[in-house]
Amino acid sequence: MRTVQWNYQTNQLEMIDQRILPGAFKIISYDDYHVLAQAITDMVVRGAPAIGATAGFGLALAAQQSPAREPDALRADLKHASEVLHAARPTAVNLAWALKRVLNVAAAVPGGADDVQSAVLREAQRIADEDVEINQRMARRGSELIQDGDTVIHHCNTGALATVDWGTALGVIRMAYELGKRVHVLVDETRPRLQGARLTAWELEQYGIPYDIISDNAAGFFLRTGQVQKCFVGSDRTAANGDVANKIGTYMLALAAYDNDVPFYPVVPTSTIDLSLASGELIPIEERNPDEVLDLQKGGLHTAPASARENARARNPAFDVTPARLVTGIVTENGVAYPPFEITLRNMVEGGKVDR
Amino acid sequence: MRTVQWNYQTNQLEMIDQRILPGAFKIISYDDYHVLAQAITDMVVRGAPAIGATAGFGLALAAQQSPAREPDALRADLKHASEVLHAARPTAVNLAWALKRVLNVAAAVPGGADDVQSAVLREAQRIADEDVEINQRMARRGSELIQDGDTVIHHCNTGALATVDWGTALGVIRMAYELGKRVHVLVDETRPRLQGARLTAWELEQYGIPYDIISDNAAGFFLRTGQVQKCFVGSDRTAANGDVANKIGTYMLALAAYDNDVPFYPVVPTSTIDLSLASGELIPIEERNPDEVLDLQKGGLHTAPASARENARARNPAFDVTPARLVTGIVTENGVAYPPFEITLRNMVEGGKVDR
Repeated sequence: MRTVQWNYQTNQLEMIDQRILPGAFKIISYDDYHVLAQAITDMVVRGAPAIGATAGFGLALAAQQSPAREPDALRADLKHASEVLHAARPTAVNLAWALKRVLNVAAAVPGGADDVQSAVLREAQRIADEDVEINQRMARRGSELIQDGDTVIHHCNTGALATVDWGTALGVIRMAYELGKRVHVLVDETRPRLQGARLTAWELEQYGIPYDIISDNAAGFFLRTGQVQKCFVGSDRTAANGDVANKIGTYMLALAAYDNDVPFYPVVPTSTIDLSLASGELIPIEERNPDEVLDLQKGGLHTAPASARENARARNPAFDVTPARLVTGIVTENGVAYPPFEITLRNMVEGGKVDR
Repeated sequence: MRTVQWNYQTNQLEMIDQRILPGAFKIISYDDYHVLAQAITDMVVRGAPAIGATAGFGLALAAQQSPAREPDALRADLKHASEVLHAARPTAVNLAWALKRVLNVAAAVPGGADDVQSAVLREAQRIADEDVEINQRMARRGSELIQDGDTVIHHCNTGALATVDWGTALGVIRMAYELGKRVHVLVDETRPRLQGARLTAWELEQYGIPYDIISDNAAGFFLRTGQVQKCFVGSDRTAANGDVANKIGTYMLALAAYDNDVPFYPVVPTSTIDLSLASGELIPIEERNPDEVLDLQKGGLHTAPASARENARARNPAFDVTPARLVTGIVTENGVAYPPFEITLRNMVEGGKVDR
């Protein structure tokens, strides 16, 4: 089961409801793009690649729903649907990109309304398949870095749930395991939103990979006592010099790995490498609602004093920047880049262009 | 109000119930040492210095409760009471030390049963007062390191609640504030038991010191972006070379401070400096119940998958060792020790012996 998946028997879009994991596993089926748009807003699905694929399939639903018999009337309905879907998470870059890509195909395809409808579904499927294919290539590249018997630390959730399938850093670990290597994962719980304890642990359970959840601040202990061989993390955005912006806590993990000579590998599709950014200093860091720190989990337990909650006495930066000097290598779908990253990352991105 | 305090009007021992903070503030009065022993077991009071003082006062309650008219009969009752109190937390070093100190005074004091009884209370009070006095001296020494306008990071709870009053690292911050310096505290929430979010935030509310709670893994972000001037932590045990064993997460905080040239100060009474330990590598690290990681807070919210909880799939080291190379200076009641710690820490400990 992919995180986002078209069912060709029912012509519905099926998605894992990520809001209720790991307490419950539920698949929701969608046949109405308006309902799907609301689901994107409600974060039934999360993770930029997964949202992009979902939006593409949303247009496939809209094409099915449209009563239009003429191709141009159908194209007009698709245009309207793309506006509804875009408004669901207006700041998500992948969402706008996927909608545009599907609309372009719909505009160019010759023939009648039926031809447009099937071309739209085909393109949405292609977007989803490409995401899986790129992740699998990254996973194979990265899995070569893992030795049989390794214990690795993983931060946040970078798995199938954040993508259409496979994921990035967690995909590397899964591939190594599926290729027969014994691997044990120390799962950073990843405060404040606990994506590690909630989602990564749940995924590892599905794959049968042995793991232990740890407090983020315990990673240093395990690194210093020689119990860890590698660290793997994702990245939201990587600068031309190899500075890596990722989930809060990545920088402190990288420091602890570096201090103990343990290799530290971000796993990043070349699409998230921004060669126009000279360094990570230029990446703006989103600061989120203090309630995520004070309430432990949305709707969950309050531990801080009531007055701290009333006055929102918390700071909550969502990301940090790990300087390239702490990074051993950057795993992409085109290979592993090693320092000097200014040269090797460009090769990976350009190699990718040739490769596709 | 001290954490542990004898009420001379009622002849009862009063303690803040730390189990229910910060949700509720309650003072419990004790007039029966059996009930007090159970309270120590139940962790109404925590922190080695606080437990030591509590045990001393427990013997004062036992002397009051005893029907003995003869001093030797009273001494026998005290001996029995000390066994009951010792069994309450058998591994607590300060508890045994305080009981022995009070029993020695009871054995030596001339006169009748009344004289023994009042000598016991006097010695218990002295133990408590000495703890406060040492902490205040440390606080004054350490407060000189804080500049007006500083933002500091603090880990775990090292405040009045962990001692009889004032505390260690938090005492330093409080003293600076009371001496008129503006100081802002970034409070590490301190997973897994959340002593920062629960207890340190509560104390800072009482003192009126401004603060923000942060996820432990966010400390690196604030240090790297130039928002922090100093870090203060406690220490459970400090080796002769300046290696510091303290609450899990201290090592990663020290790494992040060092990487950004931010001074890092453990605040430690000389009684916790162990000159017989050449280095921190020799300090054994307790690994606690995985439930503390998996359940967020005892009796609280489960976030990890049910199968993770059933199989106790977490690791939970309670402490880590910060190597001396990351430590700027060690604050003691006799002054601040700077590298080379092998020499300066010995001076502090021996200076203390002369000083007292």
